[in-house]
Amino acid sequence: MSVKVITVGEKVLVANEVKARENKDRLDRQNIFTINIMSSPGAGKTSLILSTLKHFKNKIGMAVIEGDVASSVDADKVNALGIPVIQINTAGGCHLDANMVAPALDGLPLDKTDLLFIENVGNLICPNNYVLGEDARVMIASLPEGDDKPYKYPAMFADTDVVVLNKTDLRPYLEFNVDAFKKAVTGLNPDVTIFPVSCRTGEGLEDWYAWLGAAVKEKRK
Amino acid sequence: MSVKVITVGEKVLVANEVKARENKDRLDRQNIFTINIMSSPGAGKTSLILSTLKHFKNKIGMAVIEGDVASSVDADKVNALGIPVIQINTAGGCHLDANMVAPALDGLPLDKTDLLFIENVGNLICPNNYVLGEDARVMIASLPEGDDKPYKYPAMFADTDVVVLNKTDLRPYLEFNVDAFKKAVTGLNPDVTIFPVSCRTGEGLEDWYAWLGAAVKEKRK
Repeated sequence: MSVKVITVGEKVLVANEVKARENKDRLDRQNIFTINIMSSPGAGKTSLILSTLKHFKNKIGMAVIEGDVASSVDADKVNALGIPVIQINTAGGCHLDANMVAPALDGLPLDKTDLLFIENVGNLICPNNYVLGEDARVMIASLPEGDDKPYKYPAMFADTDVVVLNKTDLRPYLEFNVDAFKKAVTGLNPDVTIFPVSCRTGEGLEDWYAWLGAAVKEKRK
Repeated sequence: MSVKVITVGEKVLVANEVKARENKDRLDRQNIFTINIMSSPGAGKTSLILSTLKHFKNKIGMAVIEGDVASSVDADKVNALGIPVIQINTAGGCHLDANMVAPALDGLPLDKTDLLFIENVGNLICPNNYVLGEDARVMIASLPEGDDKPYKYPAMFADTDVVVLNKTDLRPYLEFNVDAFKKAVTGLNPDVTIFPVSCRTGEGLEDWYAWLGAAVKEKRK
């Protein structure tokens, strides 16, 4: 029988997965559909969350965990909508991990929550290695970033359940080939669902809301 | 006398600084002005480099080191201009370090180089901790990312010599307060030089070229 060698990096990831499983079990017991939202800085994570909170407000119970290197800029915006929110500041850390999420869950009214958003740190690389306890991974790409990003940052595109392609309102002013982008993404990830949207104009958001609403309903059963 | 405790993370950074000093000494002996270019994915690192290569072509000797998680998309574009380029693929790694840059220097015609561009991995957090041997750090922010980024990712804005604010051509289509952005950046970094530019239209690039040309000339003395 061969000895399994675990490097320090692997140990960290294994420990994270154990903690993520605990988070997931806890959220499953309450039937809370949880999404881990990842993207580059400024792609529109907070904008998507704010639009979605407004859409589902007073229809389902929602809560938000905000991850940032610094500041509470995003949490303040969620709080202004009257939605429970916990801000995690990573103090320079480049991703959330399951150990950061666990105490944040303690601070949220889980018994009144059907849908939990976890907004990860803006980073297209590191967050992908750390599961948090989510049901689905949602990544946001945006038109100004360029249609070549799946080739340059393949791991996150390959591992996500959903790609929200944001800022479609800027299409007239940019060279961005939507078909080439979709082809690159599905080449890495044939089962992915892609929603082209503009959080600014609202274009395309109905499809995203329909997908999310169905997933929340399914989780409640 | 107290014992200085160095954690694993610190050891890595100290070792990196030693190697970066070796790279810097080597580049200094050849009077090569070297810039480490950092930004979020898609902010315009490659676009800025390509515009600058075209501007200075046949006037000064240039070379490029391209850092990416995967692909040689960017190096291919530089190569098409006839400029010496080495692609570093980090295979998932979220930043360049000085040990990756050293062998790349071996592959470039340093005796014919006055200006070396090192394009870092697209990431607004991790690359900031790793000096490479550069004379100047240049970070790119872009209008679509939003004017709140200095608050959310303060370290890189605080440590850079230059901020290139790219995609000014999109100003009419976005809510981006240039003055608020500049105020936030200079609050973190009073000595920074900010160049608002559009790599697409060329707006503002003359000031960037003038700064860079003067720095190359100064290094040659």
